[in-house]
Amino acid sequence: MDTRFAEDFKAGDIFDLGKYQVSRDEIIAFGKKYDPFPFHVDDDLAAGTVFGGIISSGWLTSLIWLRLMHKNFLSYETILGSPGHEEVKWPTPVRPDDELYGKAEILESRISKSKPELGFVRYRATLSNQRDEVVFDTTSTLMVKSRLADGS
Amino acid sequence: MDTRFAEDFKAGDIFDLGKYQVSRDEIIAFGKKYDPFPFHVDDDLAAGTVFGGIISSGWLTSLIWLRLMHKNFLSYETILGSPGHEEVKWPTPVRPDDELYGKAEILESRISKSKPELGFVRYRATLSNQRDEVVFDTTSTLMVKSRLADGS
Repeated sequence: MDTRFAEDFKAGDIFDLGKYQVSRDEIIAFGKKYDPFPFHVDDDLAAGTVFGGIISSGWLTSLIWLRLMHKNFLSYETILGSPGHEEVKWPTPVRPDDELYGKAEILESRISKSKPELGFVRYRATLSNQRDEVVFDTTSTLMVKSRLADGS
Repeated sequence: MDTRFAEDFKAGDIFDLGKYQVSRDEIIAFGKKYDPFPFHVDDDLAAGTVFGGIISSGWLTSLIWLRLMHKNFLSYETILGSPGHEEVKWPTPVRPDDELYGKAEILESRISKSKPELGFVRYRATLSNQRDEVVFDTTSTLMVKSRLADGS
């Protein structure tokens, strides 16, 4: 990743987060560990629910997005994580073998008034499947060092 | 868990989600797998950041809450998961050996007009640490079968 300071992010900038194919095994393993609803862990039980088959935990879907962010967007030189998300939506279930692709759009970037070495970069990010249905949709803010913190 | 239908949740109901102690090992293992910022995976690098030491990924904190929800709140007979969260906040970092406790408060319960066998139960849930600082704060809605779906 290029090292970007808070000032380098502009509203309207769009970043390609790349692709990821989801496996049945990881849906079930994750469900058993963290989110063991029947429709996340068992094909037969899932078939009898409104979902008609096994679906990914929304939290696994979120983590797939997070890994794409790390791979294709987040610079460790300048980005200090996030205090949370305004919204996390899972509008369409993710099913085994779905191929997801992600993008992020910058909504706003501002420098902290009280700590001018720090900026806040607000963005919206989505994951979509191979039918272009949105499966993950979030708005959040990253804490990002400003050029003042660079000392250069 | 008692089997509760949508009608059985009332605004103001409060549920104790129990406790969980976070280990340094799980913070690092989770960070390496899903959220490898330096301050989630390496003590020395973390010591040089604004956090002053290693902290949990907010996503791990969320999953600790989720496991407490499964253990102490979610009934598989009636609850059909969630389409997302209105808000997910991590106002205070979680550090190794923190002991967290959770609670959930029902904000609203209503039956779907188009699908009367289904209800929507909106709630706010938090995790707090041993100093009563809130480390996780979310508002979300569960899809819950109504008594009409019970067939009884």
